Amino acid sequence: MGQPHPRDEADAGKPPLGIGMVGYAFMGAAHSQGWRTVGRVFDLPSRPVLAAVCGRDGQAVRAMAERHGWAAAETDWRALIARDDVDVVDICTPGDSHAEIAVAALAAGKHVLCEKPLANTVEEAEAMAAAGEQAYRQGRLTMVGFNYRRLPATSLARRMVREGRLGTLRHVRVTYLQDWLVDPEFPLTWRLRREVAGSGALGDLGAHIVDLAQYLAGEPLAGVSALTETFVRERPLPGGTTGGLAAVSAGGLGTVTVDDAALFTARFASGALATFEASRFATGRKNSLRIELNGERGSLAFDLERLNELAYHDHTEPLAHAGFRRILVTEPDHPYLEAWWPPGHGLGYEHTFVHQARDLVHAIAANHRPEPSFADGLQVQRVLAAVEESAAKNSVYTPVVV
Amino acid sequence: MGQPHPRDEADAGKPPLGIGMVGYAFMGAAHSQGWRTVGRVFDLPSRPVLAAVCGRDGQAVRAMAERHGWAAAETDWRALIARDDVDVVDICTPGDSHAEIAVAALAAGKHVLCEKPLANTVEEAEAMAAAGEQAYRQGRLTMVGFNYRRLPATSLARRMVREGRLGTLRHVRVTYLQDWLVDPEFPLTWRLRREVAGSGALGDLGAHIVDLAQYLAGEPLAGVSALTETFVRERPLPGGTTGGLAAVSAGGLGTVTVDDAALFTARFASGALATFEASRFATGRKNSLRIELNGERGSLAFDLERLNELAYHDHTEPLAHAGFRRILVTEPDHPYLEAWWPPGHGLGYEHTFVHQARDLVHAIAANHRPEPSFADGLQVQRVLAAVEESAAKNSVYTPVVV
Amino acid sequence: MGQPHPRDEADAGKPPLGIGMVGYAFMGAAHSQGWRTVGRVFDLPSRPVLAAVCGRDGQAVRAMAERHGWAAAETDWRALIARDDVDVVDICTPGDSHAEIAVAALAAGKHVLCEKPLANTVEEAEAMAAAGEQAYRQGRLTMVGFNYRRLPATSLARRMVREGRLGTLRHVRVTYLQDWLVDPEFPLTWRLRREVAGSGALGDLGAHIVDLAQYLAGEPLAGVSALTETFVRERPLPGGTTGGLAAVSAGGLGTVTVDDAALFTARFASGALATFEASRFATGRKNSLRIELNGERGSLAFDLERLNELAYHDHTEPLAHAGFRRILVTEPDHPYLEAWWPPGHGLGYEHTFVHQARDLVHAIAANHRPEPSFADGLQVQRVLAAVEESAAKNSVYTPVVV
Amino acid sequence: MGQPHPRDEADAGKPPLGIGMVGYAFMGAAHSQGWRTVGRVFDLPSRPVLAAVCGRDGQAVRAMAERHGWAAAETDWRALIARDDVDVVDICTPGDSHAEIAVAALAAGKHVLCEKPLANTVEEAEAMAAAGEQAYRQGRLTMVGFNYRRLPATSLARRMVREGRLGTLRHVRVTYLQDWLVDPEFPLTWRLRREVAGSGALGDLGAHIVDLAQYLAGEPLAGVSALTETFVRERPLPGGTTGGLAAVSAGGLGTVTVDDAALFTARFASGALATFEASRFATGRKNSLRIELNGERGSLAFDLERLNELAYHDHTEPLAHAGFRRILVTEPDHPYLEAWWPPGHGLGYEHTFVHQARDLVHAIAANHRPEPSFADGLQVQRVLAAVEESAAKNSVYTPVVV
Repeated sequence: MGQPHPRDEADAGKPPLGIGMVGYAFMGAAHSQGWRTVGRVFDLPSRPVLAAVCGRDGQAVRAMAERHGWAAAETDWRALIARDDVDVVDICTPGDSHAEIAVAALAAGKHVLCEKPLANTVEEAEAMAAAGEQAYRQGRLTMVGFNYRRLPATSLARRMVREGRLGTLRHVRVTYLQDWLVDPEFPLTWRLRREVAGSGALGDLGAHIVDLAQYLAGEPLAGVSALTETFVRERPLPGGTTGGLAAVSAGGLGTVTVDDAALFTARFASGALATFEASRFATGRKNSLRIELNGERGSLAFDLERLNELAYHDHTEPLAHAGFRRILVTEPDHPYLEAWWPPGHGLGYEHTFVHQARDLVHAIAANHRPEPSFADGLQVQRVLAAVEESAAKNSVYTPVVV
Repeated sequence: MGQPHPRDEADAGKPPLGIGMVGYAFMGAAHSQGWRTVGRVFDLPSRPVLAAVCGRDGQAVRAMAERHGWAAAETDWRALIARDDVDVVDICTPGDSHAEIAVAALAAGKHVLCEKPLANTVEEAEAMAAAGEQAYRQGRLTMVGFNYRRLPATSLARRMVREGRLGTLRHVRVTYLQDWLVDPEFPLTWRLRREVAGSGALGDLGAHIVDLAQYLAGEPLAGVSALTETFVRERPLPGGTTGGLAAVSAGGLGTVTVDDAALFTARFASGALATFEASRFATGRKNSLRIELNGERGSLAFDLERLNELAYHDHTEPLAHAGFRRILVTEPDHPYLEAWWPPGHGLGYEHTFVHQARDLVHAIAANHRPEPSFADGLQVQRVLAAVEESAAKNSVYTPVVV
Repeated sequence: MGQPHPRDEADAGKPPLGIGMVGYAFMGAAHSQGWRTVGRVFDLPSRPVLAAVCGRDGQAVRAMAERHGWAAAETDWRALIARDDVDVVDICTPGDSHAEIAVAALAAGKHVLCEKPLANTVEEAEAMAAAGEQAYRQGRLTMVGFNYRRLPATSLARRMVREGRLGTLRHVRVTYLQDWLVDPEFPLTWRLRREVAGSGALGDLGAHIVDLAQYLAGEPLAGVSALTETFVRERPLPGGTTGGLAAVSAGGLGTVTVDDAALFTARFASGALATFEASRFATGRKNSLRIELNGERGSLAFDLERLNELAYHDHTEPLAHAGFRRILVTEPDHPYLEAWWPPGHGLGYEHTFVHQARDLVHAIAANHRPEPSFADGLQVQRVLAAVEESAAKNSVYTPVVV
Repeated sequence: MGQPHPRDEADAGKPPLGIGMVGYAFMGAAHSQGWRTVGRVFDLPSRPVLAAVCGRDGQAVRAMAERHGWAAAETDWRALIARDDVDVVDICTPGDSHAEIAVAALAAGKHVLCEKPLANTVEEAEAMAAAGEQAYRQGRLTMVGFNYRRLPATSLARRMVREGRLGTLRHVRVTYLQDWLVDPEFPLTWRLRREVAGSGALGDLGAHIVDLAQYLAGEPLAGVSALTETFVRERPLPGGTTGGLAAVSAGGLGTVTVDDAALFTARFASGALATFEASRFATGRKNSLRIELNGERGSLAFDLERLNELAYHDHTEPLAHAGFRRILVTEPDHPYLEAWWPPGHGLGYEHTFVHQARDLVHAIAANHRPEPSFADGLQVQRVLAAVEESAAKNSVYTPVVV
């Protein structure tokens, strides 16, 4: 009993949702996995179709399309957003092109998912948020790729905070530590140039932890006091095309124009205190995003290097039996896990992109504004701007513009 | 610049390798992910095609095919193995049908990947291994789905043992603990019936840890002394179709005919000692496969619930600075990781099936016998048989038949 | 305002309790700390006085008495037990002399605290238990130095088991791993000679974990199936006087007559299953006593290398928030901690001896039989004998004599 | 063979060193343990004698002297420092009396050990350091009780930094978290009143981590940017005499005049960056002092709640085998451990006071200035003052006065 061939994507009977992706490096590969897998695992109201991917190098983007299952390849993002078979534009380029592409895509009537940080400046982010707001009135949605919200463990943490399990919040401490810049011979890739990347550890890592901290706390930061530093100020110029994290030198030195590390203390709107640290110089820490929240009734702690776990202390229990428990966030009633494996069979980093795709698909079907939207991304950008302003003004406490 | 549509699978220019899968529950879903993803991530010598999936319930198997991207659905495994577009038969059914399907598939000229344990009895496993041996002479390969060999961390551990980093091996201790049977109201699903599952914790969990221990040690077990126990001897009869780990009761009680837990001590061929424990009654342990190896020059430890990590103690270092280090097994030169994400961005359980698919595809292209082959699976079966024999004979030390 | 000099010991107004200690190596130093400190920290019904210490080397024992504050030094244990100022005889010698000293001390009307294992043979232990029973009728008490019962964490575990927090017990797994014999050049000290030490890892480490497992479970072992091994069968003969764990070679080789490692599975009286492993060849493990208990309602886990912590999983909680919690056992209402430091200020290994002293002093004042008494020590000895018998009989399951 | 009674203290043949202690609460008990034990464990050049303890409540101080083995009790600290049998004055009172007692004791020709923080104000600390400097010229020494330098693990960390194992330092992050003030009903004890305690979490916890960070880094902090907060501004007035961490209410509310939490970022003199957080509101954290240092060649991490461990990452190793290792700091060649127990038998919190006593006794015998001296304590006080100044000036970066 043979059956007719199904299409490339799952759930052929459902309305298609055409995805067009701009950018095809690390993030492009991760997003591709997300779009390709989401319909195989989750029940969706529509059927994501990998319609087209876009990059400037025609040969490379064609190979990438072939590899990752994109039906078409484009070399001009304007062509991509003009395609009829593209409903969602997914922007995975460096930050300097986010605003132009996003605003144009929204104007073209597309939904837009944009990688973080939303933009390289507050001005760009404001333009994007305004365009997003206008597009929303025409039924178009915007979303920012703060994918670490989409882990079962962080989603469970958010649920527990919302349930009141922490009570009045007192402290949040967050670090995001990597070590790939420790070697002074590591070359001057695009992530180290302000005109492309906007900022260094601040925009790359700091944006993630600002968003995650505010998401988990359920409230915005009110102000910050910051230090930033560039430890290695000159680096070898890279040779040829380079990815973000690996490159070879072409000879000669260039100036690093972004921060290597950014540290700040902060106050939340409620008065809770926070510390933030983002660095690419923390030897031995590979992707160490750790966050802890302490409230009057309990505490939560998470470590991205052990992403299937959430630590929880319930302070309402008798002291004799209380302590931080390690919740293995792999139960069917944990967020996102109704569709995955039996208890104890953990997920990985890439599944954040599957979940992001799932949530956007549902939001589009329901015409509900996704979280985080461009407006949320703009607010994060304002926090980053306050960090840079404070760092430039001798660390003075600098309110976040509301 | 539009491009022609790529096919369903990656790397259209390469020769196709048709996969036909029998069984479509938990393992079927996991294998589907593996087959669908492998060509997107790894450079392969051929192009796996999800040709057909087979199950007895036509409606369910068609839905599964649609969901997971199988091109066709079959309800009779004999039809599946007769298909011209199937080169590899992937057996994901309960153990009682492994032998019949595998032997027939080999006779039909297919390569065969079979889920573990290889069979429910040594006799069946012998027949399968013999068929595998004969097929090998015709260029057909066999492989057993001991997927935990395919984790970066366990593969790195094997590489380090092979490099001599442990020296003379003294101890191996392994546990595989779950807790889904603790509730006496959990119903009598197929995994609790000897005629279908062959054994209980022993075949399901014990098979994994026997294989993994022998793989990491690089040598076979010589003999065992075992205890087995069924703590809850009667359970509610299940209602309707049931998966392995979740089910509802239909009323009435039935007898559990498999073990709930199996414990054994063992000697390796070299004289190293080992302890094994497999249980579904270890409250709070969800999928806790832990293994530690102690050698004269060093030790290694692994925990499946933290599958991106490997602990290593180098005993040749000065004591003042020695200690178990936590290797985050996410570097590009760690096994399988050349194709995945940057350091610190961990993988999940399902990626073992991607790696399994990758290794089998390479083995077929090179006509190299994969590890573990059916012969290896038979040897594991003989260890399990020795465990059951010892348990039946008052735990007396029972040599493993060679 | 000067005050009169207090005496050497605390609480001068209370009745003195004279301690006489036999043996003055590692255990002697640890017991000295216990006796000297106990009255400074705890409120006691009497005042322990370090009356006399005994060792064969007069110069060494005098130096030890001076160092550790013993009022007198003896070179003949018969003289020690004859002293009027000695109420309690504390035996810290190797196992081959325990029985003779203990029986004589009881006959002399002394209370006796004896280091573990109680004796080198069941026969000796029976004689000791019989003498203890007879002495008890004259108001003299016996106690075995299973000091790991006296940690706040293990005591809390016992309390929680007694409260029913585990429900029906299913599994206990215990390891006690050290690595000081890995080097084949380590010399043949007294701990490696059967005629002095009785057995090797079994009596030294295995005795501790058998006692601790039975204590925490609250029930005795019914039978065992065991493997023992001596990995390095000849070692250099030691030169001069040697302590237990460090020694220098005198040239020549001698035969190791005890086990290097002992592994066994076991059944508790209730039907719960257990695994035990004791080894001096587990590279990188220094003093790694780990125990886990799994019951229907919860689980507990402890690791001696992190002795201020107890892990607890409450299986009656909703799965979404359940997990092993780390109880920092430093709260005032945890066992023994009413007298120590504020929360979070941990204790160390030596404090087990302070607590042992405290419990014995209270038992003597109340004329309550201490736990573990010589009768309990005899029962442990019978388990060890069953282990040796099973190991000698091809691991056959061997009941523990009741 | 009876021997003559030894004296109260060990090593009767050595010259006595008379200790006079002021204050007898938590710190007094801990210091008593240190002085009483040090000569029993370590080989010392002199023999510490617990000469006299001083407190205002005669009955309580006499009971404490009796309990802890002090030969005399005084109720006026001026009488104590006038005693001929007192060579060392050990100050364990709240911070408001440190300066007066210390300066007088130095003038009376005594060595002085003073609990941290050195004083409540920079002015007091300056006076103390000046007095210490003058006394040093007469052969009298000063020391501040930053006891966390005296752990084997932190001492090993310092040794490793000095050996160059971290290379150029980039980051230090330190937290000291407790939770005993979370309950708003906890009463207004002396630690919450500025006139007695000087500051709150800052002086109590922050002083420790500032000292430890500078000690491990081997360099001073150059400037800070700080936030402080008092979350609960009114608390019940305590009834009767109260200790530091436990008290009962007397009715009525009083104003908390110290900080509940202090957070600051900082720059070291070398340009390394640091974050500090001290809080009594971190629910579930009991005594959680954690410090991590990241240098170009390696990293170190320590957690006071696991005080026998040090984590070390060696960044000069091949990445494939590198990772944070857990050094169990219990080997004989680790700092302080030549005198204690075999490997794996951990120490506790109180042993920091034994080691502090040991180091001071050796310093006095050698007439070497101990570390940290009052001059070092003054420098820490200047850091704390810069923190308070920055917090008062809107977090502006504030240099530490040199």
